[in-house]
Amino acid sequence: MKNKYQQLVNNTIPISKSIGWNIQALSSSHIITNNLLAPNINIHNTAFAGSQYACCMATGWTLMKCWADLNEYPAELVAAEGNIRYLKPVTTDFICQASFNEQHQDYKKLLERKSLLKSSSVALEVEIICENIICAIMDIKFVFKI
Amino acid sequence: MKNKYQQLVNNTIPISKSIGWNIQALSSSHIITNNLLAPNINIHNTAFAGSQYACCMATGWTLMKCWADLNEYPAELVAAEGNIRYLKPVTTDFICQASFNEQHQDYKKLLERKSLLKSSSVALEVEIICENIICAIMDIKFVFKI
Repeated sequence: MKNKYQQLVNNTIPISKSIGWNIQALSSSHIITNNLLAPNINIHNTAFAGSQYACCMATGWTLMKCWADLNEYPAELVAAEGNIRYLKPVTTDFICQASFNEQHQDYKKLLERKSLLKSSSVALEVEIICENIICAIMDIKFVFKI
Repeated sequence: MKNKYQQLVNNTIPISKSIGWNIQALSSSHIITNNLLAPNINIHNTAFAGSQYACCMATGWTLMKCWADLNEYPAELVAAEGNIRYLKPVTTDFICQASFNEQHQDYKKLLERKSLLKSSSVALEVEIICENIICAIMDIKFVFKI
């Protein structure tokens, strides 16, 4: 499955290739991506803030797209808002990861809206991990538009 | 001056070339950048949310870096947090613009901290304009680190 979504994202969001974004693991409830430092370097030799955000956005979008496909929710998935806090410099290649399952605050609402074939919003958190430390936390508000 | 900072950003943040980020006008108080849609396209044939953020971040960082250089503030400039609200789809090449002058809420504080050679933070708003309409608004918290 990860190959299908890697291809989908690379083909439809071509900048994902430039930022060295690669899916390591993907299910309908969890995603881990590997992201290269080299193409995303900044003046401090750490990962550019804009690239960190873009890697998180591609990661979060892919998880929710995969969830919607597997749950047969025929909605267009768009981002309405994103907020990222940079906690530590990213000094190496880095991981982005996110989870979406029954424990998530919006899970039940999303299932209900889906069953009614209505639009819905969902808040997703994506973490950036570098050398086993959380370096950034991003909160995305997605909208599923019917 | 814009050529100097275009080169600085392209050389030190190489992803700025991939996203088609180009300075149209730059002073210590204002910046306008032109940004290409084509390399930043997404599955909806509009600008990828992550690319919009990256273009805004490069734009805001360049304005504050230029301000610091011209005001002789020898601090390292880093982003601490970024928040972007997507208001309308970006369907064409787009502009990012930001201003920082005496009317800005943090201007006086920044001058004071600079005169003491101390670190300081500043909040900057960057707008994305597409066909004369504001399509996204980004709020960045930068830190000047001494």
